[in-house]
Amino acid sequence: MAYKQSMEHYLDNSATTRVDSQVADYMCHMLTQEYGNPSSLHEKGYAAERELNKAYSAVGRALGCDEGEVYFTSGGTEANNWAILQGYLARRRRGNRVITTAIEHSSVLESARRLEREFGAEVVYIQPDQYGNIASEDVLAAVTRDTVLVSIMAVNNEVGSIMPIKEIAAGVHAVAPNALVHTDAVQAFGKIPVRPKTWGVDMVTITAHKINGPKGCGALYIKKGLHLPPLLVGGEQQRGMRPGTENTAGIAGFGMAARLQQDRRIDTYGKVQQLCQMVQQFAYNEPGVVLNSGSQALPYIVNISVIGIRSETMMHYLAQRGIYVSSGSACAKGEASHVLRAMKLPPEVADSALRISFDHNSTKEDVIALLQAIKAAMGEIARR
Amino acid sequence: MAYKQSMEHYLDNSATTRVDSQVADYMCHMLTQEYGNPSSLHEKGYAAERELNKAYSAVGRALGCDEGEVYFTSGGTEANNWAILQGYLARRRRGNRVITTAIEHSSVLESARRLEREFGAEVVYIQPDQYGNIASEDVLAAVTRDTVLVSIMAVNNEVGSIMPIKEIAAGVHAVAPNALVHTDAVQAFGKIPVRPKTWGVDMVTITAHKINGPKGCGALYIKKGLHLPPLLVGGEQQRGMRPGTENTAGIAGFGMAARLQQDRRIDTYGKVQQLCQMVQQFAYNEPGVVLNSGSQALPYIVNISVIGIRSETMMHYLAQRGIYVSSGSACAKGEASHVLRAMKLPPEVADSALRISFDHNSTKEDVIALLQAIKAAMGEIARR
Repeated sequence: MAYKQSMEHYLDNSATTRVDSQVADYMCHMLTQEYGNPSSLHEKGYAAERELNKAYSAVGRALGCDEGEVYFTSGGTEANNWAILQGYLARRRRGNRVITTAIEHSSVLESARRLEREFGAEVVYIQPDQYGNIASEDVLAAVTRDTVLVSIMAVNNEVGSIMPIKEIAAGVHAVAPNALVHTDAVQAFGKIPVRPKTWGVDMVTITAHKINGPKGCGALYIKKGLHLPPLLVGGEQQRGMRPGTENTAGIAGFGMAARLQQDRRIDTYGKVQQLCQMVQQFAYNEPGVVLNSGSQALPYIVNISVIGIRSETMMHYLAQRGIYVSSGSACAKGEASHVLRAMKLPPEVADSALRISFDHNSTKEDVIALLQAIKAAMGEIARR
Repeated sequence: MAYKQSMEHYLDNSATTRVDSQVADYMCHMLTQEYGNPSSLHEKGYAAERELNKAYSAVGRALGCDEGEVYFTSGGTEANNWAILQGYLARRRRGNRVITTAIEHSSVLESARRLEREFGAEVVYIQPDQYGNIASEDVLAAVTRDTVLVSIMAVNNEVGSIMPIKEIAAGVHAVAPNALVHTDAVQAFGKIPVRPKTWGVDMVTITAHKINGPKGCGALYIKKGLHLPPLLVGGEQQRGMRPGTENTAGIAGFGMAARLQQDRRIDTYGKVQQLCQMVQQFAYNEPGVVLNSGSQALPYIVNISVIGIRSETMMHYLAQRGIYVSSGSACAKGEASHVLRAMKLPPEVADSALRISFDHNSTKEDVIALLQAIKAAMGEIARR
């Protein structure tokens, strides 16, 4: 097993990350020891509830918000569905205009399309520049007084572009006081400071599995005083806002992962920045390799194209050598990237795109192995 | 830790169960080794997908259905919301009548109320007899040609009554061919054979954490050919029916728990039946102790009342001795039980109800400790 690990170079951390062993151990403890139902009115339940409370505080602290503003969900997709569907329905008597971007995650885009299809929303999809940046002026130019919901991601999941959420939120609230501002911060959380209060947003989506926590556990920040209707109905769990027996092990694991990620955030950022620069340097130096991520992008994600070698071909070549990257969002499973299309990349660039993404476990050796393999592929595959 | 375990008598397994150590170990392996995103197009993703596929087959086998009819959710609450909300919306052009019972889980009752409140449904709540049984004749008498949805639990979570789902489904489909029949089989799964095909139902809800699997992972069986709209929208996961990165560790754990529970089902049933009989015998012999569960109820759940000692008082007394039971559904967190109220138990019986519930770990020693403590409480507390 150790051998297999040392041979692997996992550089697809924006798809998902490896759970830290101490997080996994804690989850195992929850599963087999603190297995009570947090709603049970006896010590076994109280013990589980105390662990949940630790997770509320850890996530609240990581977001710089009150722990009572955190609601755990089954992941980013549920949180995005909740914020967008119920946020719109809560405001729809005030208007029907919704603003988002063309480069959101599919759970945001499909939620927006549901609003158009089923609830008469008029949705504006803001277009990015060639690096996947969204200009706050473009967003604000689209805001009208009957705008009720704005949902814009904090960091794009394919190219790492960072959006000016704070400027957007301030501008939106100035023009459209009834509008709710939501940000999908799944790729930002734990990497840059995600601060709902400073940003002035009403709702924020985050998830555990992008920061070395478990899959199947996310959270929605809901600003205090905002009466967002629940997405699911049932029992009184999570103050009646998100019923269902809590995923105690997952939530506990999320809390610990948030704390660990917070503790190492600045160190990891510095390290990841170096790894990103190695890839950027390679793209600058190597003829036929193009950098698709902008220079201001989050260094955790770097997108390049090796012109002439299709993404799938290169991914296969790399995978045979134990190197794992992706061509785009895992959730799109091989479909052409709507993000790169919106960035208007030439077809030969979009068709050969590779997303390389890091976590705190990533090393220079991983990047060296990747770049050597890409060079080898350029020689071998190009010759065929 | 071993000491603490040996002192504990956990008899609240209908609230939730302890995860089996081999299930927890497997989940830990998933978290730290097979941590890939099942949608990723490389070996790390394929490996995770293979584990998911094992879980689909294990759960499909346990239900006697095609694995393509199984959709994993974040738990029973999400599955019930999905089946009831989207089942009704899929059929509402055919009618607006919905039939359920007064003793369903809150996630079913609240979903039914949402249909009344927001979608013009006319909902009939069938009343149980004094043991929590629902008569198929009562259900069928309520079915009209414009009935579009029937949702009736397979086993009641507070008293263990077993409902005649097969007769109900056949009767409903004969009168109302457009109606969908759903059953919340959360308390039945792994304890009695839950067979959607034999039962003739369209949708079945099950969950992992009642059979020694993890919390935060359930499933909805959807009969092949039934076009149920998804509850959540987003990526292409689970054939586009339930988007969101899969809770791979939870699902894998669910699959293993379903298999283990299936393997030991008959043995455990026999053992649990003996434990149940010990409690029944106690209730028969002891003046002032009443049996609320019917004689035909599922032996995993037995509900008794110790007249004159309020449930909370007794639970506290027992908990101090390391014995954990409940007064009703954990999801209601201390509210008066709507199930016992519907059974029309006299107030002094309802106020002193205790739910004792077993799993494969439960022992005679647990029950002896419980019954001795109840007797002691009857002496001590009654004297006060």
